Amino acid sequence: MQKYRLLTPGPTPLPENARMALGCEIIHHRTSKFRSVLADVLDRLKYVFVTKNDVLVFTSSGTGAMEAAVSNLAPRDGKVIVLESGKFSERWRKLCEKFGIEVVRYEVPWGQPFDSAKVAQLLQTHPDAACVYATLSETSTAVGHDIEAIGRVVRQHDAVFVVDGISGVGVMECQTDDWGIDVLVVGSQKALMGPPGLAFLAISPAAWRQIESIDRQAFYFDLISYRNALKGPDTPFTPAEPLVVALAESLKAICDQGIENVWRRAKVLAQATRESLLTLGMKLLAERPSDGLTAAFFPDGIDGRIFLEKLERKFGIKLAAGQGPVKGKIFRIAHMGMVDELDIIAAIAAIELVLVEMGQSVTLGAGVTAAERVIANDARVPTSMD
Amino acid sequence: MQKYRLLTPGPTPLPENARMALGCEIIHHRTSKFRSVLADVLDRLKYVFVTKNDVLVFTSSGTGAMEAAVSNLAPRDGKVIVLESGKFSERWRKLCEKFGIEVVRYEVPWGQPFDSAKVAQLLQTHPDAACVYATLSETSTAVGHDIEAIGRVVRQHDAVFVVDGISGVGVMECQTDDWGIDVLVVGSQKALMGPPGLAFLAISPAAWRQIESIDRQAFYFDLISYRNALKGPDTPFTPAEPLVVALAESLKAICDQGIENVWRRAKVLAQATRESLLTLGMKLLAERPSDGLTAAFFPDGIDGRIFLEKLERKFGIKLAAGQGPVKGKIFRIAHMGMVDELDIIAAIAAIELVLVEMGQSVTLGAGVTAAERVIANDARVPTSMD
Repeated sequence: MQKYRLLTPGPTPLPENARMALGCEIIHHRTSKFRSVLADVLDRLKYVFVTKNDVLVFTSSGTGAMEAAVSNLAPRDGKVIVLESGKFSERWRKLCEKFGIEVVRYEVPWGQPFDSAKVAQLLQTHPDAACVYATLSETSTAVGHDIEAIGRVVRQHDAVFVVDGISGVGVMECQTDDWGIDVLVVGSQKALMGPPGLAFLAISPAAWRQIESIDRQAFYFDLISYRNALKGPDTPFTPAEPLVVALAESLKAICDQGIENVWRRAKVLAQATRESLLTLGMKLLAERPSDGLTAAFFPDGIDGRIFLEKLERKFGIKLAAGQGPVKGKIFRIAHMGMVDELDIIAAIAAIELVLVEMGQSVTLGAGVTAAERVIANDARVPTSMD
Repeated sequence: MQKYRLLTPGPTPLPENARMALGCEIIHHRTSKFRSVLADVLDRLKYVFVTKNDVLVFTSSGTGAMEAAVSNLAPRDGKVIVLESGKFSERWRKLCEKFGIEVVRYEVPWGQPFDSAKVAQLLQTHPDAACVYATLSETSTAVGHDIEAIGRVVRQHDAVFVVDGISGVGVMECQTDDWGIDVLVVGSQKALMGPPGLAFLAISPAAWRQIESIDRQAFYFDLISYRNALKGPDTPFTPAEPLVVALAESLKAICDQGIENVWRRAKVLAQATRESLLTLGMKLLAERPSDGLTAAFFPDGIDGRIFLEKLERKFGIKLAAGQGPVKGKIFRIAHMGMVDELDIIAAIAAIELVLVEMGQSVTLGAGVTAAERVIANDARVPTSMD
């Protein structure tokens, strides 16, 4: 009799249509029927990514597409700049090191944003850097980085600008082409509201030229094979067909809403979440917060593991814990995809109830009231009642 | 109003339970609920593979797992032996070449099986070969190779024995441990009756020692990460959760039937298919046929493309065409997974009807009668009426 309320920054809940599509009969991928679904998915992804560049679909987690953006773009024994601010931007560095690439690190503490002026300095010191690897929304800290500003800096140099948008794209503004993002990485199971198991790259003409010029260390993720298959459109290897069919439904829902409306609504949900947690006396981790998720410290005296367990056992609310240096110190709540105003209010209410049960002096309803005020003050945002 | 009858060698139709499971609510993968599904899947895969070795699950096509079996096992600048007999065994060579590994090729013409004596000779000539790459069922030619005999030869040397069982395992006998297969590669969407998008490796202790000893050219497919995650059991990166949940249902069906029964029934279906096509005057491609699929040449005077189109448009029967040197010359019909006696009889009937429509002198019912005789003669096989 318990409802399940998935509020993690990936996977996120699927729209009903997408779930139903998952259960359809398996169709063969080398058919006009599948090709028309794939063509539709590619068109809609370009709309959501705000790009005219080629978009490629991989059967893998987002990490697979990140690997592709390293093994196809950064020459072995070459040099790249990695902007590091958490567990997932750290992965750029680990990937580069694995593939024998020299990494110039620009590291900021967890919770801090990058400074584009520092990126400009690094690019001047290292004009031979082949790529700059950055992150739109750092899922481990809930920081939303200023990719627009960093893009303005990178475009003055030859380096290819690669951005991990896995948990950011589809919930916060990302003008791929206008911001000069040469390679954008996105995952299916975050703001795109698709099932986990697909990942995407959007690749600019400049990035293609670099890919063609280097000795690619890739086979399953060899981007040239994927580009050659685009004329079908096909994928070079057997795709996870049910996931593609389901994603088509999720993307239709986003396109029907309009991507600017999705971004605007997310801003309100994010603000409502932050205001309510602050009202409950919590501290937030991110100095420049992402619109996709919020990370907050557990109050003093609260055992985070017990707190999260109670939320899940009593109310079916699944939040994410902390990772790396903030493990045991923070929780993360996502507000992307099929998460609406009342889901956030419900989560805040549950947090209040669990805090009181755990002996914290919290005014019941205070957090919920703060969230409602943010929602009420934003008359422009489409709500679940529209 | 047209039924869809998927008889390709991957993807294959899903059992009803598996399709329904695909449409369930998304659950987070870092939970005890998902871990118990994954543990169940791993246990059942070991049963189906007849192995006590570690089994790893990847979110990728079978090619991804093949890449893992190259980039983790064959040292760069090292040497391996590749047994090549069609499009998919050729992929072993291409993968090895991509990763800078010297390949000693043992090539047989499409449709021919490998000779284990030749493998013995090659191993004596090249005692420094790190691996031998072979194929259980060559999907492009429908040849079933004698992996047991080749395994007897390879075990007398230090080389690691790697077998592509992607379309063979789960439909034809494969005694992974007894036959000395160090690394077995399997895909979800063939005889295992799962959705496409997952691939598996079974890895022997000797293979693990080799993996530990070399500089692995892998991150997303780094096998040590997958082994470390087994204690959860987890996967190192976000898995395609709906596919795992669906596969659990498919594997339950195989385990309930019993793997020996599955193999025995497939033998009868394969024989029924071959006898009926021979009765219709067709020639088969494979000298040593696989139990999972049959490849036959189009009769003289038949345009294969039109033949396959008519089967699909009139009867919803989807067969596979030829690839590489037999493109336009053969068709392939699969008899694995959720394909039973009456599916084969229906396909043969449709083939008879289309041949007659295309002006061939074929005795209507002759192929079907031949198939029925094979089925009737085998009293031991469980039928769809049991």
